[in-house]
Amino acid sequence: MDDASPVDDDRTGQRIVPETIRRSDRAPENRYGNRPTMKDVAARAGVGLKTVSRVVNGEPGVTPETERRVQEAIDALGFRRNDSARVLRKGRTASIGLVLEDLADPFYGPLSRAVEEVARAHGALLINGSSAEDPDREQELALALCARRVDGLVIIPAGDDHRYLEPELKAGVATVFVDRPAGNIDADCVLADNRGGARDGVAHLIAHGHRRIGFIGDMPRIHTAAERLRGYRAAMEDAGIPVEDAWMSLGVTDPERVRRAAEVMLSGPSPVTAIFTGNNRVTVTVIRVLAEQPRPVALVGFDDIELADLLQPGVTVVAQDAAALGRTAAERLFRQLDGTLVTPERIELPTRLITRGSGELPPAH
Amino acid sequence: MDDASPVDDDRTGQRIVPETIRRSDRAPENRYGNRPTMKDVAARAGVGLKTVSRVVNGEPGVTPETERRVQEAIDALGFRRNDSARVLRKGRTASIGLVLEDLADPFYGPLSRAVEEVARAHGALLINGSSAEDPDREQELALALCARRVDGLVIIPAGDDHRYLEPELKAGVATVFVDRPAGNIDADCVLADNRGGARDGVAHLIAHGHRRIGFIGDMPRIHTAAERLRGYRAAMEDAGIPVEDAWMSLGVTDPERVRRAAEVMLSGPSPVTAIFTGNNRVTVTVIRVLAEQPRPVALVGFDDIELADLLQPGVTVVAQDAAALGRTAAERLFRQLDGTLVTPERIELPTRLITRGSGELPPAH
Repeated sequence: MDDASPVDDDRTGQRIVPETIRRSDRAPENRYGNRPTMKDVAARAGVGLKTVSRVVNGEPGVTPETERRVQEAIDALGFRRNDSARVLRKGRTASIGLVLEDLADPFYGPLSRAVEEVARAHGALLINGSSAEDPDREQELALALCARRVDGLVIIPAGDDHRYLEPELKAGVATVFVDRPAGNIDADCVLADNRGGARDGVAHLIAHGHRRIGFIGDMPRIHTAAERLRGYRAAMEDAGIPVEDAWMSLGVTDPERVRRAAEVMLSGPSPVTAIFTGNNRVTVTVIRVLAEQPRPVALVGFDDIELADLLQPGVTVVAQDAAALGRTAAERLFRQLDGTLVTPERIELPTRLITRGSGELPPAH
Repeated sequence: MDDASPVDDDRTGQRIVPETIRRSDRAPENRYGNRPTMKDVAARAGVGLKTVSRVVNGEPGVTPETERRVQEAIDALGFRRNDSARVLRKGRTASIGLVLEDLADPFYGPLSRAVEEVARAHGALLINGSSAEDPDREQELALALCARRVDGLVIIPAGDDHRYLEPELKAGVATVFVDRPAGNIDADCVLADNRGGARDGVAHLIAHGHRRIGFIGDMPRIHTAAERLRGYRAAMEDAGIPVEDAWMSLGVTDPERVRRAAEVMLSGPSPVTAIFTGNNRVTVTVIRVLAEQPRPVALVGFDDIELADLLQPGVTVVAQDAAALGRTAAERLFRQLDGTLVTPERIELPTRLITRGSGELPPAH
């Protein structure tokens, strides 16, 4: 075979173009593409390409002296086999991908670490990326990880239509959704009991005498935000309390929007006497707003937050176990990969009400 | 060329083995390797492999009718070009890697997000991984990312010897270290002024009348921990205060170890009257310990922490700008990649003392 002729790899549809051709369309100042090639190693060692290939791939038919010369050339040039090619050959990598929603949200810290620990226990590398709550970025990232031949994906979805993953699922990429379910495809998902947890938290406020209770949550298109709002409505309905529109505010969780929402609910002739916050980002802002109020306002937050117990009053929360979510999802992923799990399921993990003071304050008027 | 014969790719040293051979050593129940191949597309469309290759690679010489048939087969089978192979051909991917130390440490949240935002602005994908403070895992992860052909790496190193990266640097992989410097190689690094920040924080305690000041930090082999200890020693020396061994405790930052260290310093006939904590993980535990003390103990912590201003007293900290560290490192990485930055530098970003009450408490006796 002529080294300079392109060859097709029938598996990938790529044309593997030997170095002599490829080099011609690369600008000389390009820093990226100047890795040493097998050809460079062969030239330096004074042997043929086939000999270098035999040494690199550990095949027989090379004298010790020649092997030593090739190895010296490899070391001197810093030549390294490219694992991308090994992936093509073996059909799998020992790696899984994790698509996060926000790299800076502390909720995802223990979740990511738990996924990593399970991956590690299975000898697999974890690579992450973040969608930043953008469905297009989620898709771009998930497909980019598939293109890099991850064996499986744990996805915290930003979007609600995952049909783009169907070719990957058919091709055998294991997939588990966590925190939020998949849309329009049949896939494993591991969720917290968002609705039940919020219902418990709001019922707790009602049990402490509150009737005018506000709900501040994330954008309604986000599954967890919508479910927690449903839990709030359910608890109010259970208690026979008609909910006023002014008591509910859903939107982005940036501090300015949340602060404004809380201040509106707390003003006027009949302000709320308690607030249920829909996630940790909302809670930290509402804590600040409540600290400035002239009278105490009760608070129960969804998600635990660091140092919540040391504030005055301590913050009562509906805690979900972020590490358990990540661990459960990752374990299901590896059970898919080893073939012991074939039917997609939806798993809900329980939440836990932790009382610390803020949720037990009585109505101020 | 016979489709079933292995071919060498001279660039990578890999043997590209066509599907017919590869399939034989794969168990039928293996879910990983059953992606549709170009051969499957060719069979379904009733055309030759070369024709499929032309369509996939956008080459001329295919009639519209044939192209339509091939495209239908591609859609029906879910065939997708494998980007790993495209990487081999083009010599670069639009992606950078970030090697973190701990996925669950909130300090790395804003840092990661800043790196991601810069990558995004350059049209590149960010993929992360964590070393979990293990030098071997750092190396494994960094090299695995290089093998997946990232253009550059931002590394928060766990180890102190980075000669393993030399072949990658020679091959043109851009590299910036952040938070901690590289060891034994000449590389860009972006650090906080750890020593100066700690010195300022301890000097602040001394200015409020303290002389018996404890230091609790992370493991001494970690650059930031060692530098902050140097800052503590420098401030004490500036004030002419001899430091007692019992006042310094370095080790893992798990709550049990830190709690014990704090309790020891606070007991006995001459306890410390103030503590300087070496990072955010240490600070949150020491806050708990101090909340249980019968008398007030002053505290200044390195790193800001969420809700620090709402505690009683508010927590005085030496804040570093995690987002600025990430942004500066990522921007340098892309300047390396576009060729406008060639000489490695060590950049130190300033820290900021934020007074909130805990660091201004006078000595209790």
